[in-house]
Amino acid sequence: MHVRTFIDEMERLAPSILAEDFDAQKIGLIVEGRPEISRICCALDATPHVVNKAVLASADMLVVHHTPLWTPVTMLTGRVADLMRALLSADMNLYVMHTNFDHAPEGVNDALAELLSLQNITPMTLGCIGTSVLSAEEIAKRLGGHIRLWGEVKKITRLAIVAGSGFDPVLMEEAKEKGADAFLSSEMKHSVARMAPLPCIEATHYALEAPAMQRLATRRGWQYFDDPPFNKIIP
Amino acid sequence: MHVRTFIDEMERLAPSILAEDFDAQKIGLIVEGRPEISRICCALDATPHVVNKAVLASADMLVVHHTPLWTPVTMLTGRVADLMRALLSADMNLYVMHTNFDHAPEGVNDALAELLSLQNITPMTLGCIGTSVLSAEEIAKRLGGHIRLWGEVKKITRLAIVAGSGFDPVLMEEAKEKGADAFLSSEMKHSVARMAPLPCIEATHYALEAPAMQRLATRRGWQYFDDPPFNKIIP
Amino acid sequence: MHVRTFIDEMERLAPSILAEDFDAQKIGLIVEGRPEISRICCALDATPHVVNKAVLASADMLVVHHTPLWTPVTMLTGRVADLMRALLSADMNLYVMHTNFDHAPEGVNDALAELLSLQNITPMTLGCIGTSVLSAEEIAKRLGGHIRLWGEVKKITRLAIVAGSGFDPVLMEEAKEKGADAFLSSEMKHSVARMAPLPCIEATHYALEAPAMQRLATRRGWQYFDDPPFNKIIP
Amino acid sequence: MHVRTFIDEMERLAPSILAEDFDAQKIGLIVEGRPEISRICCALDATPHVVNKAVLASADMLVVHHTPLWTPVTMLTGRVADLMRALLSADMNLYVMHTNFDHAPEGVNDALAELLSLQNITPMTLGCIGTSVLSAEEIAKRLGGHIRLWGEVKKITRLAIVAGSGFDPVLMEEAKEKGADAFLSSEMKHSVARMAPLPCIEATHYALEAPAMQRLATRRGWQYFDDPPFNKIIP
Amino acid sequence: MHVRTFIDEMERLAPSILAEDFDAQKIGLIVEGRPEISRICCALDATPHVVNKAVLASADMLVVHHTPLWTPVTMLTGRVADLMRALLSADMNLYVMHTNFDHAPEGVNDALAELLSLQNITPMTLGCIGTSVLSAEEIAKRLGGHIRLWGEVKKITRLAIVAGSGFDPVLMEEAKEKGADAFLSSEMKHSVARMAPLPCIEATHYALEAPAMQRLATRRGWQYFDDPPFNKIIP
Amino acid sequence: MHVRTFIDEMERLAPSILAEDFDAQKIGLIVEGRPEISRICCALDATPHVVNKAVLASADMLVVHHTPLWTPVTMLTGRVADLMRALLSADMNLYVMHTNFDHAPEGVNDALAELLSLQNITPMTLGCIGTSVLSAEEIAKRLGGHIRLWGEVKKITRLAIVAGSGFDPVLMEEAKEKGADAFLSSEMKHSVARMAPLPCIEATHYALEAPAMQRLATRRGWQYFDDPPFNKIIP
Repeated sequence: MHVRTFIDEMERLAPSILAEDFDAQKIGLIVEGRPEISRICCALDATPHVVNKAVLASADMLVVHHTPLWTPVTMLTGRVADLMRALLSADMNLYVMHTNFDHAPEGVNDALAELLSLQNITPMTLGCIGTSVLSAEEIAKRLGGHIRLWGEVKKITRLAIVAGSGFDPVLMEEAKEKGADAFLSSEMKHSVARMAPLPCIEATHYALEAPAMQRLATRRGWQYFDDPPFNKIIP
Repeated sequence: MHVRTFIDEMERLAPSILAEDFDAQKIGLIVEGRPEISRICCALDATPHVVNKAVLASADMLVVHHTPLWTPVTMLTGRVADLMRALLSADMNLYVMHTNFDHAPEGVNDALAELLSLQNITPMTLGCIGTSVLSAEEIAKRLGGHIRLWGEVKKITRLAIVAGSGFDPVLMEEAKEKGADAFLSSEMKHSVARMAPLPCIEATHYALEAPAMQRLATRRGWQYFDDPPFNKIIP
Repeated sequence: MHVRTFIDEMERLAPSILAEDFDAQKIGLIVEGRPEISRICCALDATPHVVNKAVLASADMLVVHHTPLWTPVTMLTGRVADLMRALLSADMNLYVMHTNFDHAPEGVNDALAELLSLQNITPMTLGCIGTSVLSAEEIAKRLGGHIRLWGEVKKITRLAIVAGSGFDPVLMEEAKEKGADAFLSSEMKHSVARMAPLPCIEATHYALEAPAMQRLATRRGWQYFDDPPFNKIIP
Repeated sequence: MHVRTFIDEMERLAPSILAEDFDAQKIGLIVEGRPEISRICCALDATPHVVNKAVLASADMLVVHHTPLWTPVTMLTGRVADLMRALLSADMNLYVMHTNFDHAPEGVNDALAELLSLQNITPMTLGCIGTSVLSAEEIAKRLGGHIRLWGEVKKITRLAIVAGSGFDPVLMEEAKEKGADAFLSSEMKHSVARMAPLPCIEATHYALEAPAMQRLATRRGWQYFDDPPFNKIIP
Repeated sequence: MHVRTFIDEMERLAPSILAEDFDAQKIGLIVEGRPEISRICCALDATPHVVNKAVLASADMLVVHHTPLWTPVTMLTGRVADLMRALLSADMNLYVMHTNFDHAPEGVNDALAELLSLQNITPMTLGCIGTSVLSAEEIAKRLGGHIRLWGEVKKITRLAIVAGSGFDPVLMEEAKEKGADAFLSSEMKHSVARMAPLPCIEATHYALEAPAMQRLATRRGWQYFDDPPFNKIIP
Repeated sequence: MHVRTFIDEMERLAPSILAEDFDAQKIGLIVEGRPEISRICCALDATPHVVNKAVLASADMLVVHHTPLWTPVTMLTGRVADLMRALLSADMNLYVMHTNFDHAPEGVNDALAELLSLQNITPMTLGCIGTSVLSAEEIAKRLGGHIRLWGEVKKITRLAIVAGSGFDPVLMEEAKEKGADAFLSSEMKHSVARMAPLPCIEATHYALEAPAMQRLATRRGWQYFDDPPFNKIIP
């Protein structure tokens, strides 16, 4: 398949028009490799580990959620040089779907809702609210790691979820107004926790977003590389 | 004591010239109450709970680390109105020491270093590095709560500490260059963890900064109000 | 009446959508007091004198034209602290209608036009033009104080009026093009007077705007507090 | 005298380094006429009337306080075209001394202090404070027109003066702290009057600044053109 | 003819709505002279030479492509003063048509296309592409001066032309995509030439734009003044 | 030699402190290859042709004047991807000296002055002025290509030279004031030529700057790759 054909397919899946403004020039074909692609791999981040595995797998295309070139560069040195060298030397393409995939139907938040078996979904500006029958312990189990509670979470009936770094006060107010009992996201800040209008559940960024990339890979028959950041609780 | 005298004392303790630029107009006497003060209380944050206890204690002055008026306001409504009403009705003064106290000798980072028994201290742009004999478990115990490890922390010899939200890539590079084996701070972000040049230990913002306020209160004979945010790990 | 009901009423009277952009966050419920209101007072400015009288009158709500929190604040000290203490301690609400009330039908400019008995009103971008039978002396009398003439005002047939600080060169050109013989507003500047395309009449800001608040109070059965700034001519 | 020689003299009198930043490119030789000058005229503003009289007087140089090209232009049309035509056709030079002359020794504020017979002068950031034996009526007389009092002015002992538009809250606080009983300037605004920390005396901009230009002309043997804006009180 | 009538005519010819945003306040009646005009002259630039000839021709109106007041001014000194003096003293009007005339039908690019006998015109965002039968030598001859080739120009079938300074990488990509073999414009920069996606032909700015002004003058019966900058190749 | 040692040497030659502010992050080690270098090549630009020759020459380091990553990028696609692939795959380092080398002693302008045998050099803000005995024809010959005269160049005694794109009106005024008869640089613009205060000689950017890189390579024993842009005059 020509890379153009692949891009057209991805654009149908997660149209770039759905992306936030800050993603301009940071989604789509971020590194251009060979034009003809047959072997596609997928991961959440283009880490050195992931890129190495993709090279070993002779991938022509790597699809990720987070661009490795977020800050515009005028120099390719250090880690960035190493990563770009690995990709470019292998003539591998790198394709990024970020907030366009967050917002897309069947995208990041939808995958998370599915993983948590949410029912009767109400959309929010970002993420959604759904009826949950899971306890906090079961949520942790589904997400495959520990979670952290901010505020006492009693019975959860309606759970708001925002994959990624979604503890935004405005979004949390929206969740409360729309009837949520708890708010699941990642990267809680002290100042935000202090003013949270509803109990919050903090998971890791990876745990909330990786399922969407894994599900995408499975559905498309791509190889998925799991590479969670090392993370361990000392109680 | 007149409030002017008190301010002069505090200014000697944590000179406002030490504060970061973003703290302009956000430290010092933030709410002005009665000019004569005799009863002083102290906490990390001016939460409703803390202010209520200060009112019950008939405090004339409340000293905190984080201003409750961070974002400039043109309206006093909702929680802000309630908090300001509680303070103003009681004629209580509110005094804030933020990054000036972070940087001050005997300040926030010094108190944290002392709590963790760091030796042979090397200063950093913010925070410091010291020799530690504590294991991760012992660090968690001293801080009074769980910690989270990002990256495998083996034996720690030299520990970098930055109270507050200090996982800044530039600061982490500085720590590594100055010989640190691990970096302790709060509010880790996924994108930063991915590129961390050394293993990181994440505690809560409260656990890292409250000790300094508590120590200050003890030394000065003020009443200290502990009010950690509700926080619980589900493994 | 619940404060929400009151706000809805006021919003119908002077919709916030009519306000200039610079009034964002500076109109509407500026200080939030008790939710149930029965006694409403009104004035042009929330001066200490006005607020004291409102407190003595046991008002639940004070309606004014100019917000006392124009410049965003991160500190409540000095006069601002005193004023906010007076309002918050009394659980009084403060509601501001500014440029939305200037532009509203039956608003500030309409009240001024009525006071000056203008006929055959032509609207301007701000303010209006109307046929006047008053001499300069009669205008001064109606406004309840001295006026100052800039440029020789002969017979006035069509008078342009802009309540508040309205000597804007673009507005003055509009007035002239629409047939005005004279332009009444407040706070003339030397550089503007030098280039004025038509004779100008300068009254005080208070004299031009207070009538609208007084009329509003009368119509609604609220108590109005008159508090003009001390102002005296030495010829 | 060559225009360069004249500019050097003026630069000694009111060095451009003393000007506020906003005067950049707006003081000095603003319109360049013939290089050799023998006849110099002076006024506060380059009004059409003043320029006409300067042309009739065969002036080579007109010295004023306020530039007629304040707003940068890319078009010469209407009044600006007429004024520039009058100057350029006559090959007349136009020289502007603005805030550099305000701040200069023997400049605008000094001339005003002299006119009001102030003694024991204390400088302020702008303007100065001096001991006055004049009553408000006598001040009005010296200034040659009416004045307006904002706040009750009882006995004036120490009078703060700021020629031009000087009712700046920060400056007014400075005046009060330095012991002034009253503050004389021009172009008072309602919002400033409301918060004035001391009684204010408002004269016209012209009345406060023209004396300096007149004194300069007298001392240098230049012809001075008086051209006050038409201004009349209707009590 | 009144100048207003003339402006209306020109506005029909090259509507100001067609101009680029950067031309705001820099097109139309730039210098206002006498209101009644009978003698109109035309040139590419309002050089001293051109203005002198217009004065000698007793012109009431001079129409040019480039405004002499591009950078906003607060001073009329040196060359600008001399030029404005010449125009204003003669009561001559100066009218500028810039990017509005570039984009207008029958405008600058159309005149250039006609001069080069382009056929089957395809418009571009700016300029156009047309079928050419001319060799590079013949193009130089039609333009009345030397041209400079950047990149080897073989047979030209479809020629892109952009009058003025049009070597913009985005425009050049557009030309290539729309089938151009070569790109004619002026003021090539080294960094642009290095990345040019098609061979480029550089003429002088004057050679590309003057024909439109000349054709306009001819059609309207105005006097045209040719004043190319001195330009000579040393091989 | 380790790349760090090489960078230190280059830093002595053309200290980055001499660079213009706009060169921040755009000079020095722009692409990081292998740390040990033994074979160094040099050119003016990192064109595909130059990089290919450097790869064939097994270079570890390529030194150029113009960075190929001027505009910050968040994508590596098209030509940029190809160029970066060629460099990174070969583990080649790319080092850029731009305005720091322009300003450096023995730098770009010095090399040009030497090539033109200038004597009695007077420095300018950028570039310099020197006594020349060359005719325009001889200058063209020394530069190895055609030149273009703007304004009639008679006998040149003192020649101002600015390598690169140096036709800046302020610089040209400086040259005239310091006694230059002609001004040599590249990339003349029509609007600048119109106002030039002295006759100008335009060469290509390459012709003015390449000699410095060539001389540097010769002196250091590096291999130099000449790659002038295709450029041809049609008279």
